[in-house]
Amino acid sequence: MIPTTMRAVVKAEMAPGARMETVAVPRIGPRDVLVRVRATTICGTDLHIYRWDPWAQSRIKPPMVFGHEFSGDVVACGDEVTNIRLDDFVSGETHIVCGHCYSCRTGQTHICRNVKIIGVDRPGCFAEYIALPASNAWVNDPSLDPAIAAAQEPFGNAVHTALSTDLVTKTVLVTGCGPIGLFAIGIARAAGAARIFATDINLNRLEMARTMGADDPLDSRSDVVATILSATDGEGVDVLLEMSGVPVAIDQGFRALRPGGFAALLGLPGKPINGFDLANHIVFKGVTIYGVSGRKMYETWYQTRALLGDGRVDISPIITHRLPLEAYEQAFEMMISGEAAKVALFPDGGSQS
Amino acid sequence: MIPTTMRAVVKAEMAPGARMETVAVPRIGPRDVLVRVRATTICGTDLHIYRWDPWAQSRIKPPMVFGHEFSGDVVACGDEVTNIRLDDFVSGETHIVCGHCYSCRTGQTHICRNVKIIGVDRPGCFAEYIALPASNAWVNDPSLDPAIAAAQEPFGNAVHTALSTDLVTKTVLVTGCGPIGLFAIGIARAAGAARIFATDINLNRLEMARTMGADDPLDSRSDVVATILSATDGEGVDVLLEMSGVPVAIDQGFRALRPGGFAALLGLPGKPINGFDLANHIVFKGVTIYGVSGRKMYETWYQTRALLGDGRVDISPIITHRLPLEAYEQAFEMMISGEAAKVALFPDGGSQS
Amino acid sequence: MIPTTMRAVVKAEMAPGARMETVAVPRIGPRDVLVRVRATTICGTDLHIYRWDPWAQSRIKPPMVFGHEFSGDVVACGDEVTNIRLDDFVSGETHIVCGHCYSCRTGQTHICRNVKIIGVDRPGCFAEYIALPASNAWVNDPSLDPAIAAAQEPFGNAVHTALSTDLVTKTVLVTGCGPIGLFAIGIARAAGAARIFATDINLNRLEMARTMGADDPLDSRSDVVATILSATDGEGVDVLLEMSGVPVAIDQGFRALRPGGFAALLGLPGKPINGFDLANHIVFKGVTIYGVSGRKMYETWYQTRALLGDGRVDISPIITHRLPLEAYEQAFEMMISGEAAKVALFPDGGSQS
Amino acid sequence: MIPTTMRAVVKAEMAPGARMETVAVPRIGPRDVLVRVRATTICGTDLHIYRWDPWAQSRIKPPMVFGHEFSGDVVACGDEVTNIRLDDFVSGETHIVCGHCYSCRTGQTHICRNVKIIGVDRPGCFAEYIALPASNAWVNDPSLDPAIAAAQEPFGNAVHTALSTDLVTKTVLVTGCGPIGLFAIGIARAAGAARIFATDINLNRLEMARTMGADDPLDSRSDVVATILSATDGEGVDVLLEMSGVPVAIDQGFRALRPGGFAALLGLPGKPINGFDLANHIVFKGVTIYGVSGRKMYETWYQTRALLGDGRVDISPIITHRLPLEAYEQAFEMMISGEAAKVALFPDGGSQS
Repeated sequence: MIPTTMRAVVKAEMAPGARMETVAVPRIGPRDVLVRVRATTICGTDLHIYRWDPWAQSRIKPPMVFGHEFSGDVVACGDEVTNIRLDDFVSGETHIVCGHCYSCRTGQTHICRNVKIIGVDRPGCFAEYIALPASNAWVNDPSLDPAIAAAQEPFGNAVHTALSTDLVTKTVLVTGCGPIGLFAIGIARAAGAARIFATDINLNRLEMARTMGADDPLDSRSDVVATILSATDGEGVDVLLEMSGVPVAIDQGFRALRPGGFAALLGLPGKPINGFDLANHIVFKGVTIYGVSGRKMYETWYQTRALLGDGRVDISPIITHRLPLEAYEQAFEMMISGEAAKVALFPDGGSQS
Repeated sequence: MIPTTMRAVVKAEMAPGARMETVAVPRIGPRDVLVRVRATTICGTDLHIYRWDPWAQSRIKPPMVFGHEFSGDVVACGDEVTNIRLDDFVSGETHIVCGHCYSCRTGQTHICRNVKIIGVDRPGCFAEYIALPASNAWVNDPSLDPAIAAAQEPFGNAVHTALSTDLVTKTVLVTGCGPIGLFAIGIARAAGAARIFATDINLNRLEMARTMGADDPLDSRSDVVATILSATDGEGVDVLLEMSGVPVAIDQGFRALRPGGFAALLGLPGKPINGFDLANHIVFKGVTIYGVSGRKMYETWYQTRALLGDGRVDISPIITHRLPLEAYEQAFEMMISGEAAKVALFPDGGSQS
Repeated sequence: MIPTTMRAVVKAEMAPGARMETVAVPRIGPRDVLVRVRATTICGTDLHIYRWDPWAQSRIKPPMVFGHEFSGDVVACGDEVTNIRLDDFVSGETHIVCGHCYSCRTGQTHICRNVKIIGVDRPGCFAEYIALPASNAWVNDPSLDPAIAAAQEPFGNAVHTALSTDLVTKTVLVTGCGPIGLFAIGIARAAGAARIFATDINLNRLEMARTMGADDPLDSRSDVVATILSATDGEGVDVLLEMSGVPVAIDQGFRALRPGGFAALLGLPGKPINGFDLANHIVFKGVTIYGVSGRKMYETWYQTRALLGDGRVDISPIITHRLPLEAYEQAFEMMISGEAAKVALFPDGGSQS
Repeated sequence: MIPTTMRAVVKAEMAPGARMETVAVPRIGPRDVLVRVRATTICGTDLHIYRWDPWAQSRIKPPMVFGHEFSGDVVACGDEVTNIRLDDFVSGETHIVCGHCYSCRTGQTHICRNVKIIGVDRPGCFAEYIALPASNAWVNDPSLDPAIAAAQEPFGNAVHTALSTDLVTKTVLVTGCGPIGLFAIGIARAAGAARIFATDINLNRLEMARTMGADDPLDSRSDVVATILSATDGEGVDVLLEMSGVPVAIDQGFRALRPGGFAALLGLPGKPINGFDLANHIVFKGVTIYGVSGRKMYETWYQTRALLGDGRVDISPIITHRLPLEAYEQAFEMMISGEAAKVALFPDGGSQS
């Protein structure tokens, strides 16, 4: 039996913070499914909303349940749903696309012009239940750890980034060892990269980078460029995966990239950047750059399934904390402080793995 | 009979200006050819050298003959030359590559780490004769106009840029209508672009853009982005060809580019640029960017031959002036003032077409 | 007012021939549209059905209205239709895809494993009305000639084939000058091909090939390979577009293809072919081959719109005959005899252009 | 001191067999190097020459030293050699290219129209010394096993084949488990393939396939296609690597390939094949095929270095026998019988690893 109300973490006011409230269980349309959430993980975007930064102020309309990384069991299907069944264990693709714009009509739904994002533009998953279109539900192997199943969404960002070029036999630099950068290191290793450099200023994160497979974790306050050029016969790395959004890291990344190299950019600078050396970073070097938005729907999810299956990439070390949903404030603060990498929350109060 | 001395335009001193002098005809090695210059065209790089700007001061070592765009007749071949014959009418690929670096060994000689450039790092073509490696000599159809034959080198930059993605049925924006931008417009037209937008602040150049095939020449001081979005159902253009190096044009270009679009960047900003909106220009839009250096050796030259043959692209309107080599100062000044687009100089004193 | 019955050409029995009958106007579901047919064109597939050949016997289940190339006006929309409006002038994408298989979920709907084809697996358009999913309706410019609008479906096959590689500056061989081959010639011309060779045994078709832009129409009974090698400095053509399905033409095509060339194969041999020289045609030459099925949905349609707009490609010479729907038998016979290239039929009895 | 004569295995007559003879040490030109051979491995091509089959009769001009897979020490350099030094430990790229044809001038030297092959068109390496152009000498890490260093040439064929598409997360079928097929399995594993199927009729080879990383070694006399479809949710494999040249295996491979899949073809059928189902194998499925000739020069060699370094791919199990050069007849017979996979011969009489 599906109840009519549920507990949820709500962005209640146009101010910092969040509240646990009792709200209505979402209703579903004919092509939607209702999912009982087993695990949800916290994204940097959620921290922006929690802290109510300028981006959040411009985009979020309280009161709203937020959160968008989740896994759970299907407990109801709309009348027209054919591809999902009751009790399927699913994760959610966060981007609800329009289906009608040029991007959607040409197989590039990840850059739909009219995208609505779960937990940003419509109610999210920091709750006992969430509704979403059946076409956005991804069926998991029932044996997959619910926290890892939830983290597939951000892992997919790393997959989209890392696999936007062929990595086998390549030297790779990952700038920024937040969760997505750490995921990318594991993916690059699984994809046969010859040597993986990784930079961050957080030494704990550099240690995690090594755990995920980085050969050369480098403090970005050191002379990263000289180190990399020296290690690559003066050529530089074949591939840059930019995960930080930090101007100095972006600059280091491009300086360490070889002529003709490839850069995939996922990190988001908070504002336009100054002193970007476009002539030397891009033109003279003849590099190719790819901007990464979301996940390819659903090629990235198939790749994700293959990478997480059989333990090819083990992301469990990155999910550093597992807490009941009620501990959301503690969880947010641990992520803001950098104490935690990825935190999983469990609406049923448990902290199962 | 090859004389021992020749007239040449020499960068004689570490100061602005240039002098016509009598210098030795260059000697050739066993794999070089000697070319009697029929026509030479002036590049923006030559103006930097002439004016002795900071870049020139850091790179050029006077005294040296400069100039690098030329065509002429082979009058001597080194002992080991097999692919070029006496009397061949040739143009020159400017980039002398090392053959040993990673780029050279993997079919990417256009980004050779050890490149030497004719007229910059070694003696150039503002002269009656020039020596170059036989492998850098490109044999032309004897009927090709010598001035156009000389201009194939910068035309090749436009070819490399414009054909770095497929243009047929695409909407294209060319930012910057200098000679290479104008070439690119003609190439995009020949390649089947659906609609070509072009921007510049020089109205005369916009008129030339129309001549070359631009559908929508736009004053870049107008609201270019709004105009383009309106003309493309709000999507933006499929392809940006950035030929200006001007930050405001680069910004307009990326704002007018559709999600998932492609940008080829050839223009060189004089210094690192401020306020580059990497998040919105690249990441969120999921665009692909390609930096363009030189010409693909020699794929670009084959493409150039096909485009200039049979009048598919007619670049004669862009060669606005034809003067004897002795008029080099007048020619430089006309280009600096913007009065001329491309000027051809003729060492034999004529101005034949 | 929409009537309840209509005239339609029906494959009535499991035997050669077809009959004009009065049948029910199709009913539509909530996501379908009903279209009043203005023009329909005849495809080779329709001739297979008409003649009741082995393929037709294995696939078609009479009685059924057949035909699949059409244009017309939307006269009714299902309740959930949002992207199509009454009175839109539309053409139809023939492939109704499942949306759930791997191909569909990864942007490759043109190779959906569960595709249903209009006029083959479900009722077709040789009729006054046709029903189809709204997502398969492509909105045309109201000024487009209805016969050309109908022929966009097979034109799209040619677009998919010809634009599967970059043609600008390339030498191209089109083997087979049926309607799709002729379309491909026009497309290659618009895409900037340097030189277009075309082969057929029908001299009338070779004349049409010239009209569409072929530089070298060649009787395939002549020494096509020697002619092409001679015309291309012994290299062979850059691109083969195989439109015939005839083994001897396929063999000629591969022999005339240069090392490293690209072949797109659309023609369907009636049965497995003997004597296919895989070692010399593919392996030693290092060629790339792409098999062409259907149209990319809907990238091909956007390309089609751009190519047919503004007269870039004029396919009106290929629509050699325009008849009322009642003259369907005459039309089929004219196509079978080769007298007609493409025939358009008009259910309202007219033959407007 | 370099002697004037050496022992070598010579194809002495236009008849089956080979003889060990004393012949002159090769002389070198100004851009060549002379290499003292440390190890040489035997290729299937050598068996054709030994057995004097129709291909050998049409191509080989006795008397000639044959063999082309080798490693050794540089003992002399021509006057103009700059990139190779005395005592460098090198392997040899077998294809001596012209440098002037379209392929060579556009970065595709692996399909040079005028290629000369070591051991086929000019003297080979079944000898104490071999001469080759310095540009064809690839410098190895001095610690690399000489037999593995020699086998890099055929390993490069496998690299070129396997890395012609992105394999990470993909399902792969390797048809044919000769040495190059076995190499390809190891490469696919290192490249992150999700699941590797391999077929052969030799059960011993299937066992080696498992050693190299195949998940599913399959006897090609079983219902390979049904097994693969069943294991892949009915989709088929993403990638086919065809290494056998056997028509039945080629047919199985294409039938087991998913719609939209990719096939790289390296195996050479001995003659044109009958019953090739081009419509179903290529056109309807919308597959892409790439023919593999030689090695990309020298991208493949860089990839090879990265794959063999640090033990990412261990090919030592495939070098099943190590013998002195004098035992060449025993070696050929062991390979012909299938008893040996790859045999290494050592001119200095040893059998070091």
